[in-house]
Amino acid sequence: MSAAKWPEAHSQSKALYDRASQVMPGGITRILPWQEPFPVYAGSGSGAYVTDVDGTRRLDLLNNFASLIHGHAHPAIVAAIQEQVTKGTAFTLPTEPEVALAETICARAEGFEWIRFSNSGSEAVMCAIKAARAITGRSKIVKAEGVYHGSYDYAEVSLDSSPENWGDDPQSIGYSKGTPEGVKSDVVVIPFNDVDAAERIILANRDAIAAIIIDPAPSYFGFVPVSQAFVEMIRRVSTEIGAVFILDEVITFRVHSGGAQTRFNIKPDLTVLAKIIGGGFPVGAVAGSRKFMQVFDHREGKPLLPWSGTFTANPITMTAGKIALDLYTQAESDRMDVLGDRLRAGLTQAFSNADYPGQVTGFSSMFMVFGHQREVQDYRSGYSSKEEMKWVTAVDELVNADGLLERARCHYSFRAPKTF
Amino acid sequence: MSAAKWPEAHSQSKALYDRASQVMPGGITRILPWQEPFPVYAGSGSGAYVTDVDGTRRLDLLNNFASLIHGHAHPAIVAAIQEQVTKGTAFTLPTEPEVALAETICARAEGFEWIRFSNSGSEAVMCAIKAARAITGRSKIVKAEGVYHGSYDYAEVSLDSSPENWGDDPQSIGYSKGTPEGVKSDVVVIPFNDVDAAERIILANRDAIAAIIIDPAPSYFGFVPVSQAFVEMIRRVSTEIGAVFILDEVITFRVHSGGAQTRFNIKPDLTVLAKIIGGGFPVGAVAGSRKFMQVFDHREGKPLLPWSGTFTANPITMTAGKIALDLYTQAESDRMDVLGDRLRAGLTQAFSNADYPGQVTGFSSMFMVFGHQREVQDYRSGYSSKEEMKWVTAVDELVNADGLLERARCHYSFRAPKTF
Repeated sequence: MSAAKWPEAHSQSKALYDRASQVMPGGITRILPWQEPFPVYAGSGSGAYVTDVDGTRRLDLLNNFASLIHGHAHPAIVAAIQEQVTKGTAFTLPTEPEVALAETICARAEGFEWIRFSNSGSEAVMCAIKAARAITGRSKIVKAEGVYHGSYDYAEVSLDSSPENWGDDPQSIGYSKGTPEGVKSDVVVIPFNDVDAAERIILANRDAIAAIIIDPAPSYFGFVPVSQAFVEMIRRVSTEIGAVFILDEVITFRVHSGGAQTRFNIKPDLTVLAKIIGGGFPVGAVAGSRKFMQVFDHREGKPLLPWSGTFTANPITMTAGKIALDLYTQAESDRMDVLGDRLRAGLTQAFSNADYPGQVTGFSSMFMVFGHQREVQDYRSGYSSKEEMKWVTAVDELVNADGLLERARCHYSFRAPKTF
Repeated sequence: MSAAKWPEAHSQSKALYDRASQVMPGGITRILPWQEPFPVYAGSGSGAYVTDVDGTRRLDLLNNFASLIHGHAHPAIVAAIQEQVTKGTAFTLPTEPEVALAETICARAEGFEWIRFSNSGSEAVMCAIKAARAITGRSKIVKAEGVYHGSYDYAEVSLDSSPENWGDDPQSIGYSKGTPEGVKSDVVVIPFNDVDAAERIILANRDAIAAIIIDPAPSYFGFVPVSQAFVEMIRRVSTEIGAVFILDEVITFRVHSGGAQTRFNIKPDLTVLAKIIGGGFPVGAVAGSRKFMQVFDHREGKPLLPWSGTFTANPITMTAGKIALDLYTQAESDRMDVLGDRLRAGLTQAFSNADYPGQVTGFSSMFMVFGHQREVQDYRSGYSSKEEMKWVTAVDELVNADGLLERARCHYSFRAPKTF
């Protein structure tokens, strides 16, 4: 192994990036891990630590975007996958592990009567939205401004609205170039946690709305929990107008053994899951009451929403997911809350010691650093100027100087969600 | 293990289906493996054979919907995954295996300069269509009637058109209930392999078209190859109107070490890949020239199309995919052609011996059985009546009676693509 370290010119990470630049746009295939001057390449992971290809070991506070609830290479998951791979990784036929994981998840929350798997959170969000359209026969979805729900165009609307274009009421602004007008006109954007404005905007579109999708603690603005009043309004209005209430628990399912819906007593019609339920392998799912989930049922002929997928519910993901959830007891979730509190308190103290003009937000095992100290309640109050974003990238050095995290370098844990 | 066999009431498959019915709509999570009275559950696979949970061993001619080019549990893939899983299955950071698989794929076809990964073929189709919109600033896509391109709503349009609604020129008909009008109005449907009609329909929409997506041998109508004249027209017209020519090689990449585009000398702008490039693990990708792929490049700020994904390019999929492709040499592809010819010739002979009123179509390692003997050139000529579909399900018994396939029962290989 080279003696050079990232980001030195002769490091192994640089050599890999040079190779990658020949075969991938910008040398990467996912945007979020990018950092100047080139990415750090992971070599191996064990528990809470990742060692990069140049031999540097770092504490990993992001765990593949919150998908590894037990850290890297948990021994029970490693052993089970080493066994399952000898039996096969993917079949045309269903397998026992898909039944077992479905049972495990359905036992976790009161509203999970039936479940349908997919390969990613993005696919699951698309599946839930299509299900809502099939249930209601309507087209429009309601989502909160600036909330990330994966890469389905409808779900991406308003993801990076800015003071230049966000207007008074939130606008339906496409995220990527060329977003069809038909997508924008079928998405109604509401302000998160603003009960009166959101209800007014929803009711103005009431007859066209298929679904209202809500993340109970949106990652892009620091895991601010949804207020009880807001979620009660969403539940009440969804029923009143005949729309499907979809809760996006792709990230938040980790905040309780039964997800945020159990912790906060939320009663959605459909829930979108992904991340930790796959035990470190690609996964997504939609779960809900039989009344709504029957839209997938094939027994009376073509379902209202046919849904399949080549790799969906493959026995590797299903096996790993069941072990990960079985190990994630309520006691373990409680322990994560304590660890999260300790982390946030330590950071807050370190920030104070350093007169750092930022803050850490979040709860349970989720946190985010902002380069400002305004109270964050929604996308707009969390929105950072370019100057404030620089403080977020600077926090890495601060934390290392402070010695808080055992001399670990935590590049990724502290990165702001948006770097553009 | 029970002595009962599928579909007996005391079989293990029945017991699993009873459990599954409690937690999944219709007891399944993917539609295609369904069969009456309940599915066969896979226990393990090895090479070309799958043994079900009741101990019955069957020849597997479908291999998880054509995703396992080397069959089940190939020893080289098993060993590599058993090793990789000890190092970790998913990282926030990029890894060497993603670079290595990208290099491997880009070396396979002349038009693959850059590649971007995703988690499934459906995600990859969505990614390619969004890329085309971002490149052109236009909304509409063109697709051929009855061709399957995954579960993105736009790509599903016209998937099950029928004589009752298909009209003269192909119509834009949503596949699931509640498909938004905006989706239907942004999809232009053309007849496959009909050069004049397709060109006329495309040109009537020329200024609004972002992409033309073509499968070079659509699975839903028996892997009929695209005609040279048709694909030349698509190439010429795409350039003429400034649209992106997307080739869907999710299945057909297997027909040559460089895909159908190499075998048939097709020059698309972007290619969608999945299935075999993941070595039996969830995968998808978009590859193409730098000119078009730069839409993903982040180095000048926010890309025209930002694309990421939690599990995208995870090192398990990337490791397995590279081994699968390295083992899939041109000599191996040629060998598969010979095996395919033998299978089709054997079936044709067996059908003739039995006065079976159907036919087998396809080429290379792809085949399909139809319950009629009309020449299949497109969706409409392949379209089967309910009576004809019954012959397809009946072929299973015929093949077993004939002893052609070593007394194997090949339920899944012979099932028609659509059972509704």
